[in-house]
This record gives sequence, C-alpha cells and structure tokens, in this order.
Amino acid sequence: MELTRTKTDETEIIPGSDTEHGGNLFKISGEIGMPENELIDFSASINPMGISKRVKDAINEEMDNLVNYPDPDTTLLIKKLAEFHSIDPETILCGNGSTELIYLIPRALKPGKVLISAPTFSEYERACKFSYEVKVKSYELRKENRFDLIIKDYTAAMRGCDMAFLCNPNNPTGTLIKKQDVLRIAGAAKKEKCMLVVDEAFIDFSPGESVIGDVQDNPYLIVLRSMTKFYALTGLRIGCGIMNKSVIRKIKEFKEPWTVNNLAQKAAVAAIDDTGYVNETMKLMSGEKEYMERSFRQAGINYLPSSANYYLLEIENAGSVINGLKNRGLIVRDCSNFKGLDGSYIRVAVKSHEDNKQLIEEIAKLCRV
Amino acid sequence: MELTRTKTDETEIIPGSDTEHGGNLFKISGEIGMPENELIDFSASINPMGISKRVKDAINEEMDNLVNYPDPDTTLLIKKLAEFHSIDPETILCGNGSTELIYLIPRALKPGKVLISAPTFSEYERACKFSYEVKVKSYELRKENRFDLIIKDYTAAMRGCDMAFLCNPNNPTGTLIKKQDVLRIAGAAKKEKCMLVVDEAFIDFSPGESVIGDVQDNPYLIVLRSMTKFYALTGLRIGCGIMNKSVIRKIKEFKEPWTVNNLAQKAAVAAIDDTGYVNETMKLMSGEKEYMERSFRQAGINYLPSSANYYLLEIENAGSVINGLKNRGLIVRDCSNFKGLDGSYIRVAVKSHEDNKQLIEEIAKLCRV
Repeated sequence: MELTRTKTDETEIIPGSDTEHGGNLFKISGEIGMPENELIDFSASINPMGISKRVKDAINEEMDNLVNYPDPDTTLLIKKLAEFHSIDPETILCGNGSTELIYLIPRALKPGKVLISAPTFSEYERACKFSYEVKVKSYELRKENRFDLIIKDYTAAMRGCDMAFLCNPNNPTGTLIKKQDVLRIAGAAKKEKCMLVVDEAFIDFSPGESVIGDVQDNPYLIVLRSMTKFYALTGLRIGCGIMNKSVIRKIKEFKEPWTVNNLAQKAAVAAIDDTGYVNETMKLMSGEKEYMERSFRQAGINYLPSSANYYLLEIENAGSVINGLKNRGLIVRDCSNFKGLDGSYIRVAVKSHEDNKQLIEEIAKLCRV
Repeated sequence: MELTRTKTDETEIIPGSDTEHGGNLFKISGEIGMPENELIDFSASINPMGISKRVKDAINEEMDNLVNYPDPDTTLLIKKLAEFHSIDPETILCGNGSTELIYLIPRALKPGKVLISAPTFSEYERACKFSYEVKVKSYELRKENRFDLIIKDYTAAMRGCDMAFLCNPNNPTGTLIKKQDVLRIAGAAKKEKCMLVVDEAFIDFSPGESVIGDVQDNPYLIVLRSMTKFYALTGLRIGCGIMNKSVIRKIKEFKEPWTVNNLAQKAAVAAIDDTGYVNETMKLMSGEKEYMERSFRQAGINYLPSSANYYLLEIENAGSVINGLKNRGLIVRDCSNFKGLDGSYIRVAVKSHEDNKQLIEEIAKLCRV
C-alpha cells in the first residue's frame, strides 16, 4: 500500500472543518474570545425550547446503564417511532444522526450516478462524490423561481441516475414540496429505478407533508428523519431512515454496530412521548415566524418564505453583516459555501422572541451602514 | 439501480444480530424473561467499577449543551488524550467507539488484501470483507501454541498484504504481544508497506506495552484505543485512532462529521482526569485475577492466562454450561462463532469479587453434571 498524497487540495471540504456547517460554537468562541454560553446561535436551526425536563430525567435514569452496550437493534426506539408515525417497525433503521444514513445509503446501494439539487445540504454530495467517488449530477434551484423545484424538470433530470437526494423542506432555502408532489416524484423515481432519498430533517414543522407512510408501496423511496432540529437532541445524535423492507436488509449489511448510544435511545423515546413539548413548539414557532416575517418586511430585509425553522436572507453586504453580528455574539450561517448560492445570503434560525428581536434589529442596523 | 437480492444468506453475520457479540442484554432479558438489571453480564468485558461520580457530574453539567452540535474536531478530548499519553494531538482522531475507526480505516485506505488473525474480534473481518469485499488472509493462532502469535510466521504471512489487523491483547484469548515484539512486527510492516492496525482496546490493563507513542516514526502503524472497557463508557461510544500525520489527513477525508456526541466528549475528559479511578481499577483487577486463576485451578477449569480483563475457558460441555448459567441470570460469551475456535470455549469477564465467586461456583457445578 503506497501512502500517496490524496488528490484533495487545501480548498476542498474536509470533515470537521468549521467552514462547512453552522453550529460550530466551540471554534467561534475561541476565535472571538467570547464564552460559548454567551453566544446566541442562529447558525444551527434548533428548537429554542431546548430539551425538556422529561428528556433530562430519562438521560439521568439511564446513567447507570452506560456500562452496557447500546441495544444494536434500537428495539424500543423503533417501536416508539413506529407507533408515533403509524408505520411498520420493520421499515425503520436508526442511526448516529441521520448523517450516518446519508453516508450509509450510497455506500450500501452503490449508485453509479446521483442527482443532487443546488443549493442544498452539502453532506449529500460529500457522501456520494467526495468519499465514494460516485458521479454527481446537479439540479439547479433557480433564484428566479424563488428556489422552487420544478417537478417536470427534476424528474427529467432524474433519467439515467440511480439515486437522488431531495431535502424537504430544503436547507437552506426553507422551501417545501407538497406531499402530493413528492409522491409524483417518487412515482417517477420508481419508474426510472432511481432510489429517491427524501431528507425530512425539518418536516416536523409541517408534519402533514411527510411521505414517511409511503415507503411500503415504493421500494425506490427512502425517507430520512432527524431528532436534531425539532426535538433539539442535537448533541446526542439520533436520526432514522424509513425504507421498504426489500431495501432495509441490504442497508443493514453495511451498517456498523452500536452506532446509536444508550442515552440517545432513551432520550429519543422520552422526547417523542412528550406531546406537550410538540404542541408548545408548534405554537411558539408559528407566532415567532409571523413576527419575524413582519419584522423582515418592516426593516426591508429580503427573506424567502420558509416552511422550516429558519430563513434564507439575501443581503447585499452579507460578509460585513455576518462579521458585525459575530462581534455582538450573534452567530448566523454564512451561505457562501453552499453550491448554487453566491456570497449574498445568510441563514438565520427562528429562536426565542427576545433573540429574534435582537437579531433583526442588529441586521437592520448593519444593513444601513 | 436494480434492487437485486444480496448474496448474503441467512447464516451470515448481519449487523445488529444478537448472535455476534457479547453484551446484548436487552435481547437476552427478553429471551429468558428476567429483567435486564437482574442479569450479571460476564459476556462483555467492562470494568466492574462502572462509571465514577465525576463522570456522571460531567454528563449532568453538559446536559443543557445538548442543543448544540458536538465539536466535530473533538478538540478538548484530543488535547486531554495527547497530554495523558504524551503524544502529538495531531496524530489523534476520535470516533463513535473504536468501531467507527475499524470501519473507516479500510474504507479510506482501500487495501487490496488484509491479514487478520483467527480467533480475534470479528469486526475487523466484517469491516474488510463483508462490507467492502476486500480479500482477507487468515493467520491462524494455534491452540498448541496457547494461541500465541509466532512473530516470524506472522511477518511472513504479511507479505503481499496491504493491511493487517492485530488485536493486542487479543480478544477472546487475552494473550499479549510484548511492546518490543509489536515494534518488530511494525518494522516489518513498514518494510512491506503493509498498514499495521494494532487494536489496543484492552491494553489499559498493561499500559507499558502500548505502542501508542511510536506512530510518529512509522507511517505504517495505526493504534486504536477505546474507552469502552477500562473506563466503562460502553454505552456512550468513544474510541480513537493514533496514526502518523501523513495518514490522518487521508482518513479524515472519509470521516463523517459529528460522530462523537457531546456527552461522550465531556465524559471521556472527566474519566481520564479521574486518576483515583485508574489506580483503584488496577488494584481491583490484579486482586480479582489472582483469585479467579486460583479458583479456576482449584475447580479444574481449563483457562488461558490473560493480560486483559477476561478469560477464555475451555469447557467440554460448553453449550449446556452456557445455558445453565443463563438460567441463573449469569451471561457469558459463547465463543463458538469466533473463526478459529470450536464450540468448547466461553469467555468470561473479570467482575466484582462476589460476582466472580458466584460464576466460578456455578461453572464448577455445571461442569460436574
């Protein structure tokens, strides 16, 4: 084995790099010399309600069981997810965040060519192209269409592809494809024998639009869900994939054991059981989103309507606004490294009323400079 | 993409299968109708001291930070590991258990042929052969040599291989290759351009024999460490790989982001800082191992001397002993699915004095039947 230099050069994406995603507070805290807990993080779109007492109690109860291996089959979590979504437990596979599944699916199914939209979550492309050297075909979401996906163009682009990743609602735009349209795309995917992977990481805010119940009829549809955003279990890493039984067996062959830790399994069950949390979140979100949209309009800030818990803002002097906010401890997502976006976009999470108010006031001030 | 049936048949290893490893208490509990917390688990070799108050406190302090993404670079944990082992932080890569690295290393380095001993931990072979279809060459550890590795035979077997996995001390035999001999093998590996991956998951019980400090001089040596056994952080999933800087960059390209959860990072730092725990563990282990070996001899139980916290026992009617123990809530590791062992071996962990005493008494009784 020759330890040849990799073909990667310094400008390419390296995992663990802070330039890649939002939410790297540890690094930013060091950069600007402000303690991590004094930063207000709008760069990762996490439910501002945080984790509930019920979840904390579940973690505490599980503490003495940390000496045991996690159940590799995540049996109780799968049972709970199946009940909650009214789906067959045998169609569910849990992962160390949905990220594990984003990497696992192409590795197991070995597609020759994969369709990925732009702009979208960059890990799909990294999982396919960078790590496994699979060909990626881009489908451009155009600004003139408000970054909406055009179904007939998308299904045409799917031809000749073995797999397609679709983020719904899309990150970072917040645009949603309605359920009936996703099912139309999934039908076309089945016809083309193209595996459609629909990442519903942010769909808990519009649960009626999920296609999670439709995998049993379509072996070319996989749905990914995450407990990172809506349930704020970000640091524990829990996600799952829902797929036809004909597919799940193949994927499992490639799965590493024990990837979902004990605390994650217990916390996730407790979080799903906490229906009060779900209801309060929906109420908080709808009120705050109304407030933010009104405030954006009043301040003349150009935003994209969003079905998720974040907004994509178009700001002329985005770079200086991002830095100005950072100096005030407000961290937003610089979107210049999203393929398909230029340097004039930032993404901001919907947080508590006080935080949202402060953010919009500061952006308005900085835009005026 | 055709969803063809996989070539795997029902008898092959499927991840998440309970037949594969020890420690699947959830499943066994269901099988024998005894609550999980009433089982005494000798099948996974975990420090019986459990996790310390200091570690529990660290987890509790981190609870409110679960809403944030884990530091993808595991900066503070790497700093702590580097200090503790007196090694360069830039040679350390943390994973979701060392299992993540066992899978990541062959995936990233793409060896053509891999040397793996038998019997040994089965995940090496699964990571290479089963998931990635790399050719595996077996090196047989022979019973007549008390399962010791013969260095000249091993280095000869290494010829033509691009990678070799070496578990030291070996699982399930407990046999240790001395540091100077591992370095001789590593020297031969360098000459052969064969990447030697030394899994030191159980070496904390003989820390002087680790080659963790030798990777800077040898780009063909990778050392894996785990916090699962000695530190009992089993359910949290923390391990690391230590490798030459020329190798780590290549491996990182293939690594998924955020694999080590927040609580794992904080708990690991607290565990390493807890020197009292380390000293007490060493004392407990040495006393209990002396007691167990004496008792095995007195009871006429055939054991292999071990440098780890478990013993491989050779028992004629192993199957019925395993079942007899299980009915009493004592779970041991049936070794019949280890390549290179027949059905007459069980592996038992060193636990608390009371547990060890009960185990040996019950085995002695069952052997007499």
